[in-house]
Amino acid sequence: MQGIPIRHLASEALGTGLLVVTVVGSGIMAERLTDDVALQLLCNALPTGAILVVLITALGPVSGAHFNPAVTLAFLIRREISGLHALAFAITQVAGGVSGTFLAHLMFAQPVIQASTTVRTGGAMWLAEAVAAFGLVLVILAGIRQRPEAVPWLVGLFIGAAYWFTSSTSFANPAVAIARGFTDSFSGIRPLDVPGFVAAELVGAVVAGLFAHWLFARDNASAGS
Amino acid sequence: MQGIPIRHLASEALGTGLLVVTVVGSGIMAERLTDDVALQLLCNALPTGAILVVLITALGPVSGAHFNPAVTLAFLIRREISGLHALAFAITQVAGGVSGTFLAHLMFAQPVIQASTTVRTGGAMWLAEAVAAFGLVLVILAGIRQRPEAVPWLVGLFIGAAYWFTSSTSFANPAVAIARGFTDSFSGIRPLDVPGFVAAELVGAVVAGLFAHWLFARDNASAGS
Amino acid sequence: MQGIPIRHLASEALGTGLLVVTVVGSGIMAERLTDDVALQLLCNALPTGAILVVLITALGPVSGAHFNPAVTLAFLIRREISGLHALAFAITQVAGGVSGTFLAHLMFAQPVIQASTTVRTGGAMWLAEAVAAFGLVLVILAGIRQRPEAVPWLVGLFIGAAYWFTSSTSFANPAVAIARGFTDSFSGIRPLDVPGFVAAELVGAVVAGLFAHWLFARDNASAGS
Amino acid sequence: MQGIPIRHLASEALGTGLLVVTVVGSGIMAERLTDDVALQLLCNALPTGAILVVLITALGPVSGAHFNPAVTLAFLIRREISGLHALAFAITQVAGGVSGTFLAHLMFAQPVIQASTTVRTGGAMWLAEAVAAFGLVLVILAGIRQRPEAVPWLVGLFIGAAYWFTSSTSFANPAVAIARGFTDSFSGIRPLDVPGFVAAELVGAVVAGLFAHWLFARDNASAGS
Repeated sequence: MQGIPIRHLASEALGTGLLVVTVVGSGIMAERLTDDVALQLLCNALPTGAILVVLITALGPVSGAHFNPAVTLAFLIRREISGLHALAFAITQVAGGVSGTFLAHLMFAQPVIQASTTVRTGGAMWLAEAVAAFGLVLVILAGIRQRPEAVPWLVGLFIGAAYWFTSSTSFANPAVAIARGFTDSFSGIRPLDVPGFVAAELVGAVVAGLFAHWLFARDNASAGS
Repeated sequence: MQGIPIRHLASEALGTGLLVVTVVGSGIMAERLTDDVALQLLCNALPTGAILVVLITALGPVSGAHFNPAVTLAFLIRREISGLHALAFAITQVAGGVSGTFLAHLMFAQPVIQASTTVRTGGAMWLAEAVAAFGLVLVILAGIRQRPEAVPWLVGLFIGAAYWFTSSTSFANPAVAIARGFTDSFSGIRPLDVPGFVAAELVGAVVAGLFAHWLFARDNASAGS
Repeated sequence: MQGIPIRHLASEALGTGLLVVTVVGSGIMAERLTDDVALQLLCNALPTGAILVVLITALGPVSGAHFNPAVTLAFLIRREISGLHALAFAITQVAGGVSGTFLAHLMFAQPVIQASTTVRTGGAMWLAEAVAAFGLVLVILAGIRQRPEAVPWLVGLFIGAAYWFTSSTSFANPAVAIARGFTDSFSGIRPLDVPGFVAAELVGAVVAGLFAHWLFARDNASAGS
Repeated sequence: MQGIPIRHLASEALGTGLLVVTVVGSGIMAERLTDDVALQLLCNALPTGAILVVLITALGPVSGAHFNPAVTLAFLIRREISGLHALAFAITQVAGGVSGTFLAHLMFAQPVIQASTTVRTGGAMWLAEAVAAFGLVLVILAGIRQRPEAVPWLVGLFIGAAYWFTSSTSFANPAVAIARGFTDSFSGIRPLDVPGFVAAELVGAVVAGLFAHWLFARDNASAGS
């Protein structure tokens, strides 16, 4: 991985890891403390949104703070990142994310490696994941163009909301989806169902990248084309 | 619609659509996960407020991010938009909003088109809708004058609060009200009751436009008139 | 009230009124929808914090956005406002606040004028109100010196938190306390108990004004006095 | 303590005190109002996150707003503060924090001094505290380098999230841990268990200080080292 500073990879691994620690850990905590599933999801969604604001602000200047192969893919198709760079980022994100699941288990005194038994599959959920990833990438690209300093907030608020408006609770992130396959707790997803989620997320991200190219084009924005 | 860039209309349709996806989708999710109605409303209100911040920040620079015929009407009476432009915006917002309801249903594997059976009518609710729309338009006009970059937050926080302080849960948006007529879920409104809401919202918006003209007048703000 | 622009008074009345509409209205809504009192208080506190951010941002440039006789008193003892001006503000705030209670009742189809039967009295609660008002005024004065554009957020977050860390749920505002005497719902206070709250709030505000004068003094901040 | 302005110490005592008032007070309030433990924790976490944003914004320009011996230690190992200064800060923070517990008890009409009986011990919780303090210090150091004005938000959001993703509910602060030993309520910790928490927090803070030194080094950030 010559040419890619190790700090950038460390930043992507750390950020994706702490994101997954938050998703998995808060799910375990919520499940322990209440039987009300809506309250569980609220206590899962709020910390996730909050930590995204924090991590993107803190690590954005280091590595760009993708923490998400679907986001990295969007930058690849826009040719803002090389193929090798994107690949290294994606591998790092997955490794960081899976480590995050393990760390969450350690903090809650659970078996380190687990396999989820939560079924999450079917056309409606795949549509939901595609919509979630489409929205996430669109929001990031809009923010970068129009108010870069707002991107951390946009992402945190979007994901916090998307937990609720999608039937899939909006994973919207292949690295996080893979990492969540390794926990048999509130936020888990059966490993068998991970590929469907990943595929839908990548489709959503690509469509958003293309759509944003058109929607945010400056040169003829007022030409009524 | 010559002279109105297609991108502006796309932005209004997309923004209103994703707003309705959030309102309707989070309502369905909340209803599924808990029986506590206050918790349902909280899990409906928080995502709505959050997505408004996101959508207005992301799409504001493209089309102004009205997403709401009552807001468009306020700009029309202030002569900041032409009648034809306003009409095109309103039609686009309604079409986008109704599509949002359909997309939410698809993501939750429900029948695409439904008719709400939730009764929302009567003088108290109409008053509530007028107050909600009055407050929304006043807040937008104040923000534009005084801290334009704060407008997305002002709108998200205002609507998130107004869900609670109005008996109608503050639709405050004719396009959203029409779109919510097409879902028989938590956020629905019986189609028969939509015109009353729309009328009250338009009255509130017009009053706010006139009142803001007086309250925020600069030239004689310190004249003690 | 010569010399005090009518717009300033309208702004104080409107702001205090909408603040009380939010406090009283969200309390009524929460009480209707759940039996869990913590959830009721959460659905009362979140909208209150949110609307404070909105109202102070929107109306601050018009009148300073006190909406609170204790805050006005703090500016009076700092000689940033005249006695007559302060009196006019306080009267306007109370009138606006009480009107807010009436409007909330109208929106929820309740009797317009009520008398609360909720007992809130005793040394612990008075201490709580003094602490709440002390913190509120300190935070406002700190914000004005150090980051004026953050004041709306500081106030909204402080009050949202103080709902929980004080036994009194932190009224911290004589105009709001008086207005809440007129509602026999979640946020009410028995009229007999209002004077104790008001006195404690004014004491807290005065102490904060004096303490801030010392703590934030610039000239000898680094002199180790 | 010659050379350390009394105002700086007053600021640290006041800030740590109000932080503990919020943690302990909101825990007591939540416990009184509901039996749902997740809801109790939510009504404890949200005010804590909110008050951190407020206190750091308001008092940061006075004393730096550490409010936390682990944070002060991180600045000490970075040689941004002297050993004597750090010691004075730590003592002041502990004194302020313990006073905060007493004040919370007074506001809720409870015995002023209590001893907690809540067991919080074991390797998983110590790991959690180390992770929490690591994250907190990393976020602060990142914020200072990259967006100083965002530090209050970063801290508030991080701690609000960490309540949920750590099994210990993320004390992350030795002064607060000691202060929480004196309350036998929701947020308490058995005095016997305090040293384990404090040690873990200090380890996490030191590791974060060293790691940040490497991660955020500017000179060779793009050298692919």
